[in-house]
Amino acid sequence: MEKEISSKRPFRGIIADLKGRALCYKQDWITGLRSGFGILAPTTYIFFASALPVIAFGEQLSRDTDGALSTVETLASTALCGVIHSILGGQPLLILGVAEPTVLMYVYLYNFAKGRPELGKELYLAWVAWVCVWTAMLLFMMAILNAADIINRFTRVAGELFGMLISVLFIQQAIKGMVSEFSMPKEGDSQLEKYKFEWLYTNGLLGLIFTFGLLYTALKSRKARSWRYGTGWYRSFIADYGVPLMVVVWTALSFTTPSKLPSGVPRRLFSPLPWDSASLEHWTVIKDMGKVSPGYIFAAFIPALMIAGLYFFDHSVASQLAQQKEFNLKNPSAYHYDILLLGFMTLICGLLGLPPSNGVLPQSPMHTKSLAVLKRQLIRRKMVKTAKESIRKRATSSEVYENMQEVFIEMDKSPIAQTNRTVILELQDLKEAVMKSNEDEGEREEESGFDPEKHLDAYLPVRVNEQRVSNLLQSLLVAGAVLAMPAIKLMPTSVLWGYFAYMAIDSLPGNQFFERMMLLFVLPSRRFKVLEGAHASFVEKVPYKSMVAFTILQIVYFGICYGVTWIPVAGIMFPVPFFLLIAIRQYILPKLFNPSHLRELDAAEYEEIPGTPRDPLELSFRATDTTKGVPENDAEILDELTTRRGELKVRTLSLNEDKGNQIYPKEKVQAEDET
Amino acid sequence: MEKEISSKRPFRGIIADLKGRALCYKQDWITGLRSGFGILAPTTYIFFASALPVIAFGEQLSRDTDGALSTVETLASTALCGVIHSILGGQPLLILGVAEPTVLMYVYLYNFAKGRPELGKELYLAWVAWVCVWTAMLLFMMAILNAADIINRFTRVAGELFGMLISVLFIQQAIKGMVSEFSMPKEGDSQLEKYKFEWLYTNGLLGLIFTFGLLYTALKSRKARSWRYGTGWYRSFIADYGVPLMVVVWTALSFTTPSKLPSGVPRRLFSPLPWDSASLEHWTVIKDMGKVSPGYIFAAFIPALMIAGLYFFDHSVASQLAQQKEFNLKNPSAYHYDILLLGFMTLICGLLGLPPSNGVLPQSPMHTKSLAVLKRQLIRRKMVKTAKESIRKRATSSEVYENMQEVFIEMDKSPIAQTNRTVILELQDLKEAVMKSNEDEGEREEESGFDPEKHLDAYLPVRVNEQRVSNLLQSLLVAGAVLAMPAIKLMPTSVLWGYFAYMAIDSLPGNQFFERMMLLFVLPSRRFKVLEGAHASFVEKVPYKSMVAFTILQIVYFGICYGVTWIPVAGIMFPVPFFLLIAIRQYILPKLFNPSHLRELDAAEYEEIPGTPRDPLELSFRATDTTKGVPENDAEILDELTTRRGELKVRTLSLNEDKGNQIYPKEKVQAEDET
Repeated sequence: MEKEISSKRPFRGIIADLKGRALCYKQDWITGLRSGFGILAPTTYIFFASALPVIAFGEQLSRDTDGALSTVETLASTALCGVIHSILGGQPLLILGVAEPTVLMYVYLYNFAKGRPELGKELYLAWVAWVCVWTAMLLFMMAILNAADIINRFTRVAGELFGMLISVLFIQQAIKGMVSEFSMPKEGDSQLEKYKFEWLYTNGLLGLIFTFGLLYTALKSRKARSWRYGTGWYRSFIADYGVPLMVVVWTALSFTTPSKLPSGVPRRLFSPLPWDSASLEHWTVIKDMGKVSPGYIFAAFIPALMIAGLYFFDHSVASQLAQQKEFNLKNPSAYHYDILLLGFMTLICGLLGLPPSNGVLPQSPMHTKSLAVLKRQLIRRKMVKTAKESIRKRATSSEVYENMQEVFIEMDKSPIAQTNRTVILELQDLKEAVMKSNEDEGEREEESGFDPEKHLDAYLPVRVNEQRVSNLLQSLLVAGAVLAMPAIKLMPTSVLWGYFAYMAIDSLPGNQFFERMMLLFVLPSRRFKVLEGAHASFVEKVPYKSMVAFTILQIVYFGICYGVTWIPVAGIMFPVPFFLLIAIRQYILPKLFNPSHLRELDAAEYEEIPGTPRDPLELSFRATDTTKGVPENDAEILDELTTRRGELKVRTLSLNEDKGNQIYPKEKVQAEDET
Repeated sequence: MEKEISSKRPFRGIIADLKGRALCYKQDWITGLRSGFGILAPTTYIFFASALPVIAFGEQLSRDTDGALSTVETLASTALCGVIHSILGGQPLLILGVAEPTVLMYVYLYNFAKGRPELGKELYLAWVAWVCVWTAMLLFMMAILNAADIINRFTRVAGELFGMLISVLFIQQAIKGMVSEFSMPKEGDSQLEKYKFEWLYTNGLLGLIFTFGLLYTALKSRKARSWRYGTGWYRSFIADYGVPLMVVVWTALSFTTPSKLPSGVPRRLFSPLPWDSASLEHWTVIKDMGKVSPGYIFAAFIPALMIAGLYFFDHSVASQLAQQKEFNLKNPSAYHYDILLLGFMTLICGLLGLPPSNGVLPQSPMHTKSLAVLKRQLIRRKMVKTAKESIRKRATSSEVYENMQEVFIEMDKSPIAQTNRTVILELQDLKEAVMKSNEDEGEREEESGFDPEKHLDAYLPVRVNEQRVSNLLQSLLVAGAVLAMPAIKLMPTSVLWGYFAYMAIDSLPGNQFFERMMLLFVLPSRRFKVLEGAHASFVEKVPYKSMVAFTILQIVYFGICYGVTWIPVAGIMFPVPFFLLIAIRQYILPKLFNPSHLRELDAAEYEEIPGTPRDPLELSFRATDTTKGVPENDAEILDELTTRRGELKVRTLSLNEDKGNQIYPKEKVQAEDET
C-alpha cells in the first residue's frame, strides 16, 4: 500500500472511516455495557498506566516552565481528550494522554518565549495557543488529504529509534531530578530551615533511597505472573497493579520519617489545586491571544510543523499497535478520521491553555491486551456452561460441539457482515478435540474425555472485547484524579524520578535496536549463550557483519537525534531527523544492505526463535557422554555444579520418563496419531 | 561405619592419621612450590574470602564486648591458627578462621562476666582463657578416644539447620547494625557535633545506601561467569574477586561525601591498632589467670563443653566437605589428628587472649575447588604440549595417547602406592577419542582429528592440587592484614553490615532445608514450574505430604534452636539442641518416616534433576499443535508473548536443524556409534 499522498480525492479516507465505524457505533456501547462489572478490570488497569506518567510529566513541565503548566493541566488535558475520543473517536481502543514529546516541545517553546521581552512568561500560554491553532490546521489538512496512507512506511527502524530516544530522555530527567534533590530549587529562599545544607543533604539521600527503591520494586513486580509463589489472583494483581501499588507504598514510607525533620523534607510534588486562581486563569487564555503580535503568530508556524508531524506519527503508530493482526479485531480502522479529531482536540486544548494529548504507547496495546483477556473470560464462561449442560443431557459429541459453536458465533457477532466460515475454520481444533475424545470414552467421560472446564482454554481463538465504555470510564477516572489533587500532592518528587527511570528501563527489552546494541558486546566465543535463550530471528538469519554495520549506523544516527535535543531553542527541530529517517529507509538503506537482510532487521513483526538449552547432563561429573566440544572455563562448570555451601551437585535423569505427560497431559488424539 | 566411640584403643586414630599424612608431607610442599606463580590465584581468592568475614566478626565482637576484643584479635587468631595448621595440620586443604559460633559464645561469656563483680570486664579475658583450657582438654580427649568416627552421623539435617541458624543470625546482626547507625553509640558523648540529630540521621541514611548497595552489587557479581558480556578473564575476575572489589568500591564511595559533613559521618570500623597498648595487653592474660577464683574456674567447664562440641562438629564437617568424593583426592584424611591439633591451637589462643579459630565453611571447599581448577590447568598445559609434539613428529595415534597417559600418570603420582589401573580406566574416553579420530583422517589431522588444544578438556578427570603452600601463604596474607590495620579502619561499618547480609543470603541457595521451606509456598497448580527448572531429587522421589511433614518438623525445631539464642546468659547452651538432633535423627526420625524417604530428604549427596522446560512453541498464536492441558492464566500467556512496546511476538522453529551441532560439535566417535 505505497500510494503517495493522493490529493485527487480529498476526504475519501475520512468518509470511508466514518462509514465503517458508524456501523459499529451502537454495538460498541452495547458490548461494553453487557460486559458488566468485568469491564472495571481493564479500566482500572489502564487508568493507573495512564495517570502515573501524566503526573510525572506534569512535575517535569512544572519545573521546566517555572510553574506555568503543571500536573493539573496535564491531567485535565488527558481526561478531556480521553472523553472526547471515547465518545467521538474512530478507534476506541486507542488511549490518549499527554506524552513526553509534547512536554519537550512545550519546554522549548517556553525557553523561547521567556527570552523574548514581547512575550515573556505572561503571554507564553497565549502564544502556545497560536501554535496549537496552526497545528490543528495542519492536522486537518493531513486528514483531508489522506496522509495516513503512508503510515506503513513508519517501520521498526524509525519507531525503535524514537522509543530509544524517549527512554534516554526519561533517564536524563530521572538523573536531573535526583541531582536537584540535593540542591535548593530556583525560587527557594535560602533562609528557610529546609534549605540549610544538612537538610538539603538529607533530602538528597532520602531521594536516592526512594528513587532506587521504587525502581527496583516496580521492575520486580512486573514479572509477578511467572512467580512460583502465591495464588493466581495474587500474582495477577501484583503484575497488573504492582507499579501503582509501589508508588503508594513508597509514598507512605516517605511519611515514616522522624518528626524532627523540617516540613519540606522530603520534597513533594508541586502543583496548584484545580480551584486555585493559578489554574482558573486558563479560561482566559483566549482573551490573551489577541495580544500576541503578528510576527510571533507567524513564527508559531515552525514549531507547529514539528508538532503536527510528531502527533501524526505518534497517534497513528499507537493506533497501529493497538490493532495488531494477532488480535483478530473485527471492526475497521479509522486512521484518517482520528487525525481529524486529533486536530480538533489540539485546538480545544490550546485555546484552554492545556498541553494537547495524543495516542500513547504502550498504553494503547496494553488496553487491547487487557480486553482480549476479558473477552476470553466471557466467552469461556458461556461456552463451558453450554457444554456442561449438553453433556449433562447426554448429547452426542457433535451436538455438544454444535452448541458451543453457536454460542461462540453469537458472542463473536460483529455488525460488519461476515461469513461464519472463518470462524468454523478457527474452531476446527476444538471440534476435533470434542469429537475424538468422546469416541472411545463412553462411560468414563469425566475422567479423560473432553472436560470443558479444563480443556476449552487451549482451543479458544483470540478475541478482543471491542467497545468504548472502558476508554470513557478510564478518562472519567483521570478527571477524578484532577479533583483528587490534594492527595496527589503528597507524592515525593523522588518517587516520580524513580518512575521516570522505571518507564525507561521497562521499555528496553523487546526493543530490537537495544538488543542489537547489546549483542555488539557479546564476544564471538560467548555467542552460543544468545542462542541458548530465546532470541529474535535476525540473530540467525542475518550475517553478523551486516547486523553490526546496521546497528552502528543506527547508533550514529541516534547520537545525532539526541544531540539535537541539546540545542537550546532550535532543539525544537528534533523531530526532523526522524522524518528524514523515513526517507532514508525508503531510498538509501536498500542500496547499502541486502534487501532480505533489511527485511529481517526491519521486520514489521517481532519474530522470535526459542532457545536451544544445553543438555544439562553434559555438565556432570558422572557424565560418560563427552560430546561437548566447546572449550569452557573449568571454573564455570564447577560454579554451576556447586552449591553455596560448597557441595558438588550430582545430576541424574528424571526417574519418570513420562514426566512430560504428567505436567502436560497430551490429548488422546495426539497419542493415537503417533502410534 | 557406625562404630561407637571405641575407648578400647585410644590414640589409634591419631597414629593412623599421622602415618598416612607423614608419607605425603614432603610431597605437599614440593607440589606446592612446583605450581609456580599459579598458586597465587587460589591463595588470593581464599585470602579475601577468609579475611572479610573475620573483619566483620571483629566489628561485631567489638560492639558486643565493649571493645574487649576487636578486629585485631580476630585477624591475629586467624593468621596464627592458619599458619600452625598449614605447617603441622593433617588435612592441608582445610581453612581455619574465627567463625560466627565462636563470636556468639564469646558474647554470652562477656555478658556473664560483666554481671559478676568478681570478674567484670578486667578479668573477662582471663576467665575465657580458663574456658579455652577446658575446651582444649576436652578436644584432646575426643581425639584420643577416636570420637571422629561418629562424624558420619552429622547428616544434612543437622548441618543445614545449623547453617540456617547462622544465616538468620547474620541477618539479625545486619539489621541490628543498620538500626544502630541511626543512634548514638553507647559510650558516645552527646555534645559532639557528629551525634546531633541531623548528622545521626544522615549517617543512618548513608548507612542504608551503602548496606543495600554492597548487598546488591556483591550478589550480582557472583554470577559473573555466566554473563554474556565481557571476556573470559574479565568474567572470572569479577566472579572470584567481585565481592572484595565491591567492598573497596563502596568504601571509596564513602569518601565522596561532601566535605561539609562532620568527621564521624559515615561511621567507620573501630579497632585499636596492633601496636597500641590495648592490643599489647593480650600478652599479659596468662598472668591474670591466677586471679580468677576457683569457683569460676570450675564454672568455666560448662561453656567449654558447648564450645568443644561445636568445634568438633564444625571442624570435622568443614574438613569433610573439603574432601568430597567428586574431588578424587589421593591423600588420606586426618580427622582425629586435626582435632588434637585444634585442641592445641585453642589452648594457645586462649592463653594469648585471642578468640580461637576452627575449620570454616564455605571457605574450605572453595579452597579445594580453586585448587582443582589450578591442577586441571597445569595438567592440561603439559598434556597439550606433549600431544602437539607427538603429532608434529607424526607419531601414530596410539603413541600420542601413550605419551599423554604417561604425562598424566606422572603428574598424578601420589606417595600413597596406587595401581595405574584406575587411572587408565579414567582415561579410557580420552584414548577412544584419540584413536578413533586418527583412523580416518590421515592427512587432514588438523581439521577434524583430535586437536589437543580444543578437545582435551572434555576428557580430563578431576584432579586437585593437594599441597600446603596455598594455605600457608593465605595465612601469611592475613597476618599482613593485621599490619594493614590503618587501611582496614577506613571501612564504613555499614559496608560490614551489608557484608553480613550478603553472607546470609549467599548461603541459602543449595540449602535444601531452605528450598523445602520455599516449596511449602508453591501452590499445587504451580508445581509444574518447579519441575521446569533444575530441582533437587527429593522433589520427585518423596511424596509431597511426607516432605511437608518433615519440613514443618524442621521449622519447629529450628524455632526452638533460634529461641534459645535469645535467652540472655543461658543462651550459651544453644548447641545443645543440635547435639540432641543427632540422636533424634538416629533413633526417632526413622520411626516417623519411611526410611527410603528419609534417605532422600537427608541425603549425603546433593542430587539434582535437570528441568523439563516447556516447549516454547506451544505458546504461539500460530501453534496448531494444541497439546497443552494445563489451564494457565490467559494473561500469563499474553505476558510472555508481548514485548514491552506492546508488540506480540511470533515464535518459529530455528531454520537450522543442525544448530545443536553448530554450537556443540559432536565428535565423529559419537556419530559413528549412532549410525
